[in-house]
Amino acid sequence: MKRPTIIDIAREVGVSKAAVSYALNGKGGVSPETRERILDVAAALGWRASTAARALSSDRAASVGVVLARPPELLGTEPFLMRLVAGLERTLSAYGVSLQLALTSDTETELATYRQWWAERRIDGVVLTDLRTADPRPGLVRELGVPAVLFGTAGPVPGITALRSDDERTARSAVAHLVELGHRRIAHVQGPDNLRHTLRRAAVLGDTAHELAGIELHREVGGYTEDGGLRATRRLLAARPRPTAVIYDNDVMAVAAVAHADELGVRIPAELSVLAWEDSMLCRVVRPAVTAFDHDVTADGAQAARVLLELIETGVGVDGDLGDRTLVVRSSTGPA
Amino acid sequence: MKRPTIIDIAREVGVSKAAVSYALNGKGGVSPETRERILDVAAALGWRASTAARALSSDRAASVGVVLARPPELLGTEPFLMRLVAGLERTLSAYGVSLQLALTSDTETELATYRQWWAERRIDGVVLTDLRTADPRPGLVRELGVPAVLFGTAGPVPGITALRSDDERTARSAVAHLVELGHRRIAHVQGPDNLRHTLRRAAVLGDTAHELAGIELHREVGGYTEDGGLRATRRLLAARPRPTAVIYDNDVMAVAAVAHADELGVRIPAELSVLAWEDSMLCRVVRPAVTAFDHDVTADGAQAARVLLELIETGVGVDGDLGDRTLVVRSSTGPA
Repeated sequence: MKRPTIIDIAREVGVSKAAVSYALNGKGGVSPETRERILDVAAALGWRASTAARALSSDRAASVGVVLARPPELLGTEPFLMRLVAGLERTLSAYGVSLQLALTSDTETELATYRQWWAERRIDGVVLTDLRTADPRPGLVRELGVPAVLFGTAGPVPGITALRSDDERTARSAVAHLVELGHRRIAHVQGPDNLRHTLRRAAVLGDTAHELAGIELHREVGGYTEDGGLRATRRLLAARPRPTAVIYDNDVMAVAAVAHADELGVRIPAELSVLAWEDSMLCRVVRPAVTAFDHDVTADGAQAARVLLELIETGVGVDGDLGDRTLVVRSSTGPA
Repeated sequence: MKRPTIIDIAREVGVSKAAVSYALNGKGGVSPETRERILDVAAALGWRASTAARALSSDRAASVGVVLARPPELLGTEPFLMRLVAGLERTLSAYGVSLQLALTSDTETELATYRQWWAERRIDGVVLTDLRTADPRPGLVRELGVPAVLFGTAGPVPGITALRSDDERTARSAVAHLVELGHRRIAHVQGPDNLRHTLRRAAVLGDTAHELAGIELHREVGGYTEDGGLRATRRLLAARPRPTAVIYDNDVMAVAAVAHADELGVRIPAELSVLAWEDSMLCRVVRPAVTAFDHDVTADGAQAARVLLELIETGVGVDGDLGDRTLVVRSSTGPA
């Protein structure tokens, strides 16, 4: 049941591995009679050209790598990641390309993974997510020459194909909704402080609040997790003056606050309106249900896969825009 | 920036590809002088032995394949899958083995994926999940000779290494909890009817209910999804006599029922107790919070990875038992 290798064929025919390789690849170096015998034996043994062999000859692995760098406790909690992977994988598989997946929460490991994948020709390209401040990854992929697509960035990144998120539009929609409800003391509970899109979002929300209502946002770091979101919410509830509305950077933190409103001693939305930057089943099932931004993560993942495949094939990467987010107003936001 | 290949080295040195291959692999067939020149040029070009080359020579891909076969709408909803992938990947990566991931909801595509991965030497083995009735996958992996570990099965499967779940123990714990609360009309809302562990669970729950309380379980198929769970709940609430407690096969269906209790016209737990076979953040944040079975999916995934790596290395697979489930009693279950 073992897969036949060129070694098996060579042994059976009584020639060298190199002769088998020449014959199977249609190169010179073996006599027509030997070539015939080799091809007959290969067929009889059920030999098939392997990815390994084709990768060597065509310099293609037919595989794309993704490293998801999030704290371990978020991997089974935040639906965003699985939806992104699903979108990537479905498009890649339609083109016969595999997805290599690695999960880590440590930048050194992530860098080593890219180096190893590339050096060992396991992948033809990578999708990078969650660009960090002082992020060494764009420099590494440029140095190695790995085709790379950056998912969800604010603007262009030199030498890397970027798919942009329109944070200005989303921020305007979030702040306008809360300001229309009469809120003037608004807080932002953000993701990890080392993620560039988190800082960008905080800056854009701050600018928008200033522009639309002449107000300053109260900022707390929640780090995307349930516990972090709860701690940030406790801090902002202790602030004086106390905010009357909060924009959370993800569903997990917003839903944690709503689920623990009694312990936090706050009525939602009467005393505190809650809005989440990401929608999910969590936002729908909690009571009050959470006002959140719906967007098609799976379609965004499919777009990233298509742009990367084109970059690998043609050497040319075309920057693009990810899909827009639509505010789904539910019961967690109300008048100030 | 292109990775150097043995073709580049051959061109630079002015010898054949075969000569370069001999020199780099430490075989005879080239003169010591030529070997020296080849090694110097290889080092200067930054050549490294690739996975492809090692896969050809050692017959190993250093990669393991997993196909997750669930309806697309569940991939971003059910936390179980991401936790399982996280557990598998962390152990594999510690051994320098990659994870090849594919997502599909179609058996034909899944079978074609295994065939292609194996024929092209992309993988050294597979983890199979969600064994189905009349499942063609065990037959296929036996036919191909792919090392395979079956995750979460009731009993041994001929020719395949199996990791068992102790459904009897879990079923006994679920039924005992509800019977102690005085429930005698108990329903089971199960996953898809074509999954063997679903049917097995239904049978075991039925036997246990009969043994512990002399009662028959009311059965509905919910198929794991929110919508399916809601439809099944509507059917069982319309039954006469109406059940007073329900065991749902996953968190998504149980939480959908609790979140929509008002629309369903039922008070939980006063008129209906709700228990979920899988715990997750969904069960914790909904009100009333859902009584559910906690278990360490990530540890189970790590165990599957270890067993598969040993099977690949030694050719011997050792059946094992997955971790036990512990009932976490919350507010969704109460007196009948």
